[in-house]
Order: sequence, then C-alpha cells, then structure tokens
Amino acid sequence: MPSEETMENAVSAYVARLSAGDLDGVVALFASDASVEDPVGTPPRVGHAALREFFGVAVSANAKLVLDGPIRTASNYAAFPFHVILDWQGRTTRIDVIDVFQFDEHGKIAEMRAFFGSKNSAAVTGA
Amino acid sequence: MPSEETMENAVSAYVARLSAGDLDGVVALFASDASVEDPVGTPPRVGHAALREFFGVAVSANAKLVLDGPIRTASNYAAFPFHVILDWQGRTTRIDVIDVFQFDEHGKIAEMRAFFGSKNSAAVTGA
Repeated sequence: MPSEETMENAVSAYVARLSAGDLDGVVALFASDASVEDPVGTPPRVGHAALREFFGVAVSANAKLVLDGPIRTASNYAAFPFHVILDWQGRTTRIDVIDVFQFDEHGKIAEMRAFFGSKNSAAVTGA
Repeated sequence: MPSEETMENAVSAYVARLSAGDLDGVVALFASDASVEDPVGTPPRVGHAALREFFGVAVSANAKLVLDGPIRTASNYAAFPFHVILDWQGRTTRIDVIDVFQFDEHGKIAEMRAFFGSKNSAAVTGA
C-alpha cells in the first residue's frame, strides 16, 4: 500500500501538472488500465489513451485547479476538495469538486471519481 | 434517484443532528441495512443497531461537525469536506474528514465512507 506521503505527492502533482497543461505528466500519474469517472454517474474512461483525450479537453479549456482544504488519505485512497476555473463555452466557469483517488500498490492512480453537480458550477463574474 | 436538494438536506441534517447528540435523528437518515466505513479501510458497520453503537461513541465524545466547503452532489452521491472537534482520550482533537454518502431511491443513506488518516488529526491547543 502506498504511503500517505506518496498519495499526497500524487495529488499535489495532479493539481500542478493539470493546471500547467502538462498532459504527459498528468497521464503518467495513472495506472495503464486506470478508470476515470468524472463526474460520478457518467461512463468511466479507461486506459491512458482515453485519459489523454479526457484531460486534453481540460487543458484546452485552460483548467486551473486550486486545493480548498487538506488532502485526506485513508487506506489506499486520497480525497481532496478543490475548485477549478476553466473557459467553457465562452464563459469563465468555476466548479467545486471533490476527487477521490484509489491507488494501486505501485503508487499509481487506479481509479478516480469526481463528485460535482449542477449546483457546484457557477459563472465567474467580472472575468 | 433522490434530488440534489434531498441529498443536501440529508447532509445538513447529519451535521446538525450528530453535533446536537441526536442519535435517533442521525440513525433515521440511514437505510436499515446501511453500511458505514469510517475511516475507509476499517470493517464496515452494517445496520441500524451497529450504526447506533458507532455514532453513540461520537456523541459520547461530544463531537461537533463543521462543514468546510460546499456539498458536492453527483448522481446518487453527496461528498462534503468538514472537520470534527471531539474529546478523545482526554484531549480535544480536530479531524479533517471527507465523507461520501451514497443514497438509495428513498433518499436514505445506503453507504457512508469517511476519508481521513493520521495526518488529518491534530490536538487542539489552548483547549
């Protein structure tokens, strides 16, 4: 089981790399057969090719992630609250999200689930 | 599937009732066969009797919960960041937690998972 530090470092790297548009760096955090359910309730994307396509959309939208509290780790999971600012359909939008990462024994993300809904999204005024 | 409002109201009621020591009120939010894994990685408690015993320990510790950001809802899930202050082994302790509730079709909590680890707990100084 990965250490708390390993999992915290992976979360920090995910936030930093996705915000920097480092698509290779983001995908490298995930196991080759990882699944991403974002948001929860939608069909999971599975595998590096699908993840690259999915996170590529976020990079194209100029997504910037900001942690909004401590990273929680438990067993082989990390959960963390954050918000993302992105350009979406001509508007600057903020979405409040909680991500849950499940890690494999190598410290790679095996499963990601993103929790947010319609009430967690708002246009950023004055942007 | 329960509405976002139903799930948000259940989370608000959970926070308020547990902080008020309303054990009956807390248990009533859960399905009769609900499971609680708190923290994630420990054996789940299943059913109202086990939940009453579990939450009774929190009430005895004078647990007070405070939300630390918006409730996120997705599909039949709610996820929320909070901290709890409690009296534990003679000390006042703060724990930063993310809870994930899965709801059944009746708006009851079918599964609760609590994410926190050793680095999310700290003694409250000056208490």
